Amino acid sequence: MKTEIQPAQGKLGILIPGLGAVATTLIAGVEAVNKGISKPIGSHTQMGSIRLGKRTENRNPKIKDFVPLANLNDIVFGGWDVYSDNVYEAAMKAEVLEPGLLFSVKEQLEKIQPMPAAFDKNYAKNLDGTHVKTGTRLELAQQLMEDIQNFKEQNGLDRVVVLWCGSTEIYYEASDVHSTLAKFEEGLKNDDHLIAPSMLYAYAALKLGVPYINGAPNLTVDTPALIELAHQTQTPIAGKDFKTGQTLMKTILAPGLAARSLGVRGWFSTNILGNRDGWVLDDPDNFKTKEVSKLGVLEDIFKPEDNPDLYGDIYHKIRINYYPPHGDSKESWDNIDIFGWLGYKMQIKINFLCRDSILAAPVALDLALFTDLAKRAGMSGVQEWLSFYLKSPQTAPGLPAENDIFKQLIKLENTLRYLMGEDLITHLGLDYYEDVFAKQLDTL
Amino acid sequence: MKTEIQPAQGKLGILIPGLGAVATTLIAGVEAVNKGISKPIGSHTQMGSIRLGKRTENRNPKIKDFVPLANLNDIVFGGWDVYSDNVYEAAMKAEVLEPGLLFSVKEQLEKIQPMPAAFDKNYAKNLDGTHVKTGTRLELAQQLMEDIQNFKEQNGLDRVVVLWCGSTEIYYEASDVHSTLAKFEEGLKNDDHLIAPSMLYAYAALKLGVPYINGAPNLTVDTPALIELAHQTQTPIAGKDFKTGQTLMKTILAPGLAARSLGVRGWFSTNILGNRDGWVLDDPDNFKTKEVSKLGVLEDIFKPEDNPDLYGDIYHKIRINYYPPHGDSKESWDNIDIFGWLGYKMQIKINFLCRDSILAAPVALDLALFTDLAKRAGMSGVQEWLSFYLKSPQTAPGLPAENDIFKQLIKLENTLRYLMGEDLITHLGLDYYEDVFAKQLDTL
Amino acid sequence: MKTEIQPAQGKLGILIPGLGAVATTLIAGVEAVNKGISKPIGSHTQMGSIRLGKRTENRNPKIKDFVPLANLNDIVFGGWDVYSDNVYEAAMKAEVLEPGLLFSVKEQLEKIQPMPAAFDKNYAKNLDGTHVKTGTRLELAQQLMEDIQNFKEQNGLDRVVVLWCGSTEIYYEASDVHSTLAKFEEGLKNDDHLIAPSMLYAYAALKLGVPYINGAPNLTVDTPALIELAHQTQTPIAGKDFKTGQTLMKTILAPGLAARSLGVRGWFSTNILGNRDGWVLDDPDNFKTKEVSKLGVLEDIFKPEDNPDLYGDIYHKIRINYYPPHGDSKESWDNIDIFGWLGYKMQIKINFLCRDSILAAPVALDLALFTDLAKRAGMSGVQEWLSFYLKSPQTAPGLPAENDIFKQLIKLENTLRYLMGEDLITHLGLDYYEDVFAKQLDTL
Amino acid sequence: MKTEIQPAQGKLGILIPGLGAVATTLIAGVEAVNKGISKPIGSHTQMGSIRLGKRTENRNPKIKDFVPLANLNDIVFGGWDVYSDNVYEAAMKAEVLEPGLLFSVKEQLEKIQPMPAAFDKNYAKNLDGTHVKTGTRLELAQQLMEDIQNFKEQNGLDRVVVLWCGSTEIYYEASDVHSTLAKFEEGLKNDDHLIAPSMLYAYAALKLGVPYINGAPNLTVDTPALIELAHQTQTPIAGKDFKTGQTLMKTILAPGLAARSLGVRGWFSTNILGNRDGWVLDDPDNFKTKEVSKLGVLEDIFKPEDNPDLYGDIYHKIRINYYPPHGDSKESWDNIDIFGWLGYKMQIKINFLCRDSILAAPVALDLALFTDLAKRAGMSGVQEWLSFYLKSPQTAPGLPAENDIFKQLIKLENTLRYLMGEDLITHLGLDYYEDVFAKQLDTL
Ligand SMILES: NC(=O)c1ccc[n+]([C@@H]2O[C@H](COP(=O)([O-])OP(=O)(O)OC[C@H]3O[C@@H](n4cnc5c(N)ncnc54)[C@H](O)[C@@H]3O)[C@@H](O)[C@H]2O)c1
Ligand SMILES: NC(=O)c1ccc[n+]([C@@H]2O[C@H](COP(=O)([O-])OP(=O)(O)OC[C@H]3O[C@@H](n4cnc5c(N)ncnc54)[C@H](O)[C@@H]3O)[C@@H](O)[C@H]2O)c1
Ligand SMILES: NC(=O)c1ccc[n+]([C@@H]2O[C@H](COP(=O)([O-])OP(=O)(O)OC[C@H]3O[C@@H](n4cnc5c(N)ncnc54)[C@H](O)[C@@H]3O)[C@@H](O)[C@H]2O)c1
Ligand SMILES: NC(=O)c1ccc[n+]([C@@H]2O[C@H](COP(=O)([O-])OP(=O)(O)OC[C@H]3O[C@@H](n4cnc5c(N)ncnc54)[C@H](O)[C@@H]3O)[C@@H](O)[C@H]2O)c1
Ligand code: NA
Ligand code: NA
Repeated sequence: MKTEIQPAQGKLGILIPGLGAVATTLIAGVEAVNKGISKPIGSHTQMGSIRLGKRTENRNPKIKDFVPLANLNDIVFGGWDVYSDNVYEAAMKAEVLEPGLLFSVKEQLEKIQPMPAAFDKNYAKNLDGTHVKTGTRLELAQQLMEDIQNFKEQNGLDRVVVLWCGSTEIYYEASDVHSTLAKFEEGLKNDDHLIAPSMLYAYAALKLGVPYINGAPNLTVDTPALIELAHQTQTPIAGKDFKTGQTLMKTILAPGLAARSLGVRGWFSTNILGNRDGWVLDDPDNFKTKEVSKLGVLEDIFKPEDNPDLYGDIYHKIRINYYPPHGDSKESWDNIDIFGWLGYKMQIKINFLCRDSILAAPVALDLALFTDLAKRAGMSGVQEWLSFYLKSPQTAPGLPAENDIFKQLIKLENTLRYLMGEDLITHLGLDYYEDVFAKQLDTL
Repeated sequence: MKTEIQPAQGKLGILIPGLGAVATTLIAGVEAVNKGISKPIGSHTQMGSIRLGKRTENRNPKIKDFVPLANLNDIVFGGWDVYSDNVYEAAMKAEVLEPGLLFSVKEQLEKIQPMPAAFDKNYAKNLDGTHVKTGTRLELAQQLMEDIQNFKEQNGLDRVVVLWCGSTEIYYEASDVHSTLAKFEEGLKNDDHLIAPSMLYAYAALKLGVPYINGAPNLTVDTPALIELAHQTQTPIAGKDFKTGQTLMKTILAPGLAARSLGVRGWFSTNILGNRDGWVLDDPDNFKTKEVSKLGVLEDIFKPEDNPDLYGDIYHKIRINYYPPHGDSKESWDNIDIFGWLGYKMQIKINFLCRDSILAAPVALDLALFTDLAKRAGMSGVQEWLSFYLKSPQTAPGLPAENDIFKQLIKLENTLRYLMGEDLITHLGLDYYEDVFAKQLDTL
Repeated sequence: MKTEIQPAQGKLGILIPGLGAVATTLIAGVEAVNKGISKPIGSHTQMGSIRLGKRTENRNPKIKDFVPLANLNDIVFGGWDVYSDNVYEAAMKAEVLEPGLLFSVKEQLEKIQPMPAAFDKNYAKNLDGTHVKTGTRLELAQQLMEDIQNFKEQNGLDRVVVLWCGSTEIYYEASDVHSTLAKFEEGLKNDDHLIAPSMLYAYAALKLGVPYINGAPNLTVDTPALIELAHQTQTPIAGKDFKTGQTLMKTILAPGLAARSLGVRGWFSTNILGNRDGWVLDDPDNFKTKEVSKLGVLEDIFKPEDNPDLYGDIYHKIRINYYPPHGDSKESWDNIDIFGWLGYKMQIKINFLCRDSILAAPVALDLALFTDLAKRAGMSGVQEWLSFYLKSPQTAPGLPAENDIFKQLIKLENTLRYLMGEDLITHLGLDYYEDVFAKQLDTL
Repeated sequence: MKTEIQPAQGKLGILIPGLGAVATTLIAGVEAVNKGISKPIGSHTQMGSIRLGKRTENRNPKIKDFVPLANLNDIVFGGWDVYSDNVYEAAMKAEVLEPGLLFSVKEQLEKIQPMPAAFDKNYAKNLDGTHVKTGTRLELAQQLMEDIQNFKEQNGLDRVVVLWCGSTEIYYEASDVHSTLAKFEEGLKNDDHLIAPSMLYAYAALKLGVPYINGAPNLTVDTPALIELAHQTQTPIAGKDFKTGQTLMKTILAPGLAARSLGVRGWFSTNILGNRDGWVLDDPDNFKTKEVSKLGVLEDIFKPEDNPDLYGDIYHKIRINYYPPHGDSKESWDNIDIFGWLGYKMQIKINFLCRDSILAAPVALDLALFTDLAKRAGMSGVQEWLSFYLKSPQTAPGLPAENDIFKQLIKLENTLRYLMGEDLITHLGLDYYEDVFAKQLDTL
């Protein structure tokens, strides 16, 4: 039975706190795609297809033809940043896309001026931007709500999502002020510095029923207070941290090793990158937030407590090194110590010459389109089916996260099938071999 | 509803044509495990577990505790080879396992003397063994059937499987003589040289209702004649080619790239290995068989015809280089040229310092145990659910092979769940978020 | 005492058989450097310096300021090719340099039209160009001589060198026709097909006293006949095969291992490249020529006969794979199996993401400038001091080649010092530690 | 003219502070070599040869046959450590050599009991051994002198060298107490904690005229005070830090790049190792000492001030990661960003699967043998000709270190030739091409 989903009529606003490398790559890309210059490679919503029915039915529509998503032509971008560069200038500085490509969408990009940010330097010491709002936390939140509403009106938008592409904040854990919505709102009033800037954006969005996506490993909406708010206003949330690069690789490879019951003794991951994100992460407090986000994935996939012989003693180490020569061309090198039959040792080395923002931009796009879909489908709170895109997926309280990218993919696909009233797929397929059970079927 | 499966009572014989590196590693390993010296790492039947029911039920039995498999203690090994070395000698020459380990199971290994092989040098020119049977192809097949029956009687076995671990034969395609069982049997009589040695073992096994597993990329049972025979005698078959090393990696990684709609422009795979398998594959005719087996996997996973923008122009090249310094420590190096958002290029390099036979042995074991299970469960013919273990899986005629290891895993697991009457798993999991649909559920 | 060297007055013509990737990268680069757009990185004559006198004298002039070389502004380029594309077109097709850079020197490049080639398709089957001369080998040689003289006159040149940047020819060994100049000239008359096209260019050049540089592994001037001619006309020759990429790495690394008496058991080298050079080398006959050129280097450096314990059993294997996705961005991967103290094994893996023509162009330039210098310094025949630049250096008959790049460098530098009357450098340097021998000096 | 060198008569004691991985690998190895079980691979004194005279003379004696070195059979080992394990126990714990090999020299190794160490935990916080001497620094130094003399007498030795294989101390710079011998001896009396433990060993050795080798990056003898003492007692010193692994590679590769005037933009070096050395270096203060030692090498080789276009902006970063799964099998991964012709970018990646102590042991041996030679040849103070073996070579004050391993090698070889009265080698070799200068020679 098909779910009732409101159609994707009118325009969708994507409002982005943090108009840096990822955001500008996303925006320039969507403009280039809309102009027919480039293709939205890496965006599963735009390029991917989904199998429906039995293998032999040959029904493999593109996802965007299967579920009612906003059209790329109907997207309007806006955002906030602590630097006042417009999106064209910021994109040029980010040095992700070639000047030639950016030039061809210059007009569109120059129009997008960041609104002043809600910022607190304690949460990102390596940043020195001054394009910021002033006021108590409550006042900042109210200004952000006004920003959102003005943006919606001025652009004649039907719907909005807020997509955090801002820097990684320093590491902090949930405390009392984050435990209930009431306490949180009290904290806003008291300008409680335990409320991080990202939470102000999230609060503003959710309060208005606008979905919030957390592309960084920041705590933000992974707190009881804001989950409560999300349910109150029937609004979807998704997070944390876009899954790209090394972690993407890890959640591809680790399930493969686990599938074969190959043991793992150590996993060493190092990264070199030279963009602003790398510079912010050069501060140990900000790195810690990222490290926690990255470290979790293996444990969930390998389940050491269930498989002590195979995964009970993994030494997992992650390093991020700021290395300017590479700019946004993040490179990772992994050494994985595995063991097989009778404990014999083997090694896998993976060298990924990736481009950070090139991988992140389509993920950001898909999350924006899917949370908008979720809102229209009446889904609210944590959207676990989107964990496919996330390094450190938020789940229902008490439920362990699923990090295996293939299980995440099935979850995503079966959710779409479910929403559209199609059969879920189990890959059983014994029916192609009916004679297989010939003897037994006779006796049934 | 649970399938009726005969219990795994008594002893299981595993008869192996080709007592080389893989076979001796398998045999020595099972003996070492039975002595409590080592662990059967890499064997999913022995070490792996399977989730049953909902995530929160926490039901994750070991596979061997869930389905009725033969116990490792109940296995008796035997085999054929063109060289007369006993298994201890052959294992020492293969240089896969350390002398110390082999010494500890010397007694068991020395007892296993290969029976003379059914062999034809035209199918493997680099081999010069002389421990071979004589006679026409029909006579050879009859001798093999006697070998199997004698082995069963002499060892008081309940059941037998035949597990091909022999060399890769030269490349040949199915011809008229392989098209029906009648023509095949006619060919046996005429000593038709288009019938490969491996087919004689397969014929002998199937004729006796003994499952046949094809660990090499040889055509063998992937022919109408022998499939016909398999159905006639209600016998399972599985093939082709143990999935290990580079292809294992490829079928792990490629689905990950496809999941994210990342484009692929080229995939260069090279291998260096110095064991006897490498020596046989140094002959271009034998390499061709392996190459065909290895080349297919990407096409199936990427479906270029459905995704021309992403996968329509992949240059896929595979090289195997005989390189004695590495012995059985096969090493692979892959360079993968991918592209993402707006067509921007990235590269992945994978260097796998693997050990060929260490990866293959547990795969061989699992295939033996699962085909024996299949036989007892009344399944016959091609066992597609075992494609998880195979480089070039045999399927129902006309049905495209599934090479994505994660789909193969779900297929395997859901088959086991199905056999045992458990719910199939879809990873939908929306029920954990019931409130998600709160609004909608109200209106339904 | 300083050698008498004629000054580098007037203009130097560089005439190039083969206006492909390397040649066009060289030409475009020199033009760009002359325009002040780029720097001639990788050219030791232009960027390198040389230490003179004692370390503490701090005399480190640039090489071009130390020895009298032709100035880049005084170079005029010309050449021949079997395709009629002008240098701008050929450079665009080669896809080595960015269109933007090429555009900035378009005017200069378009002017250079290749003269029709002396060609024989039997020597390069994968080429299908038709811009070729006709006639017997003698007639072709005469036409080439006319080409050279016309070019010199029309451009008002003072001196010319001929620089082979043509394709690698198929493998052939010296035969009777190459054994003396008389027999060679007889062969020209008889249109003997054992005389390769490259030899016609070499003959034409040397006959006119014009230095000949062999950038390919072709036999060409490594024959008694042409060496005889070189001496007759007092003309320098240099060859074979520009040393770049993997072989460059090998002759850097191998001396380092040898210096430390680390043993080597195997060296596996594979390459992927997708340019026209790669396409020509995809033909086994042409590959053989390259393979021979590349294989020699280790033997000379490791001297297995003198060091059997360390280097007596090296398995050295080289592969070149045509792989279009990489174009001119040749990539190499080496696995080196070494052993140290007590025979313990270690491995080194080198992955060089290089650009073939970017490495070759400055080597070609330096060879042209240095052979011109040699001519003016009265040096003739084989110039062993230039082996620094060559994969398979030609030497005096009977003299083993020196492949250690560091010995080659000292040889080059001490030759320059010698020519200019400077002290040779021995790196002894005990004089800085005079007191070292205090005791002994007293007793002397 | 040949230097007067006292013969290597009688026995040589090698006394080692720090009987850890390197030292026990050295000792066990020498014993195994003396028993004829293994070969001293990696020891240039034992396995290497040296060319004498002209290339065509074919004089390439083994170094040990050319210069009068102590014979391995005449070596007696002893040492100190903060742990009381005998050398057999320590070697077993270090897990560098296989138990089987160690077992075969167990008797010899067990005899070697460490003497209590002169230690100060402030210099290596991660160590917790208690097998230590007590007293003021002066008393400790005196105890060490007694240790040396007792050891010499009890073993009937002719000569002794002290070879530091102890841990890397925390970073400290030379201060007033290290500025003259007088102040240093005053400091000993005052138990000045700025005098590091390693200095006590060095002081004790030099005072007795016993050569001191500094295998760690510790400051120790790189101080005016101890250099003064070395000259006073006519004693050679050598340091700092055995050159192995990544730095060995770096000083092989960097000269190769510089030779070709290839530019370098970045060099990222990471290491993973899991031995006790790695554990000590996990403390940032101790890592700093190592980092300084490792960072210097590129600057000297590339001379950025002379070559700003090529090497003026190198980002050089070094990481050492404690990673237990690898034990002593240290592994390094380097990414090098280079640029060539016209500034085009290329990358080199080096993955060295090395074994730390296997590389270090023969270096330690050679240094011991060569300093003993130097002593007998009347050389005293800093032995720059041994910088071939050292990561951070000590030089005459004001003289820049030479890190290019090939210049270091020539320096070493020409020093040996000089000592033995052989011609120094310049690799000029123009004499093989006498006709080259035919014309000119006529005119001379
Ligand atoms: N592959 C990827 O690039 C990737 C993957 C996963 C997650 N992420 C995360 O995405 C985020 C963006 O990455 P990026 O590479 O674009 O970084 P970036 O540094 O280029 O951009 C971040 C921008 O956020 C701005 N900013 C910081 N705090 C702000 C605030 N309170 N309000 C408004 N703007 C603020 C900064 O000024 C900056 O311009 C980072 O948190 C990063 O960790 C990136
Ligand atoms: N990872 C792996 O090792 C791996 C993976 C996939 C497939 N395989 C395949 O498994 C097979 C065995 O591999 P291996 O490494 O053990 O090779 P191997 O060469 O060590 O052993 C093969 C043995 O088969 C014997 N043989 C050949 N023809 C025979 C015949 N007609 N009858 C009886 N014996 C015969 C040979 O004498 C040899 O001893 C090969 O076909 C290989 O391609 C191996
Ligand atoms: N790093 C390097 O690129 C490198 C290194 C060492 C040697 N080389 C050698 O340099 C040569 C040139 O390399 P490339 O990459 O420029 O190759 P390319 O294929 O781009 O260019 C070679 C050109 O030579 C022309 N040619 C062939 N035969 C000819 C003839 N008889 N007369 C005139 N022209 C002829 C071809 O048409 C082609 O245009 C090759 O032999 C190559 O093996 C190149
Ligand atoms: N490739 C290499 O292994 C390599 C290369 C260059 C330098 N080094 C240096 O060589 C040294 C030894 O390396 P290792 O791998 O053998 O380390 P290790 O930790 O195995 O051994 C060092 C030993 O020194 C002892 N020690 C520490 N302080 C001492 C003191 N004051 N007196 C006596 N003993 C003391 C420790 O207890 C330990 O047993 C280290 O400084 C290391 O940095 C090693
Ligand atoms: Na690192
Ligand atoms: Na290859």
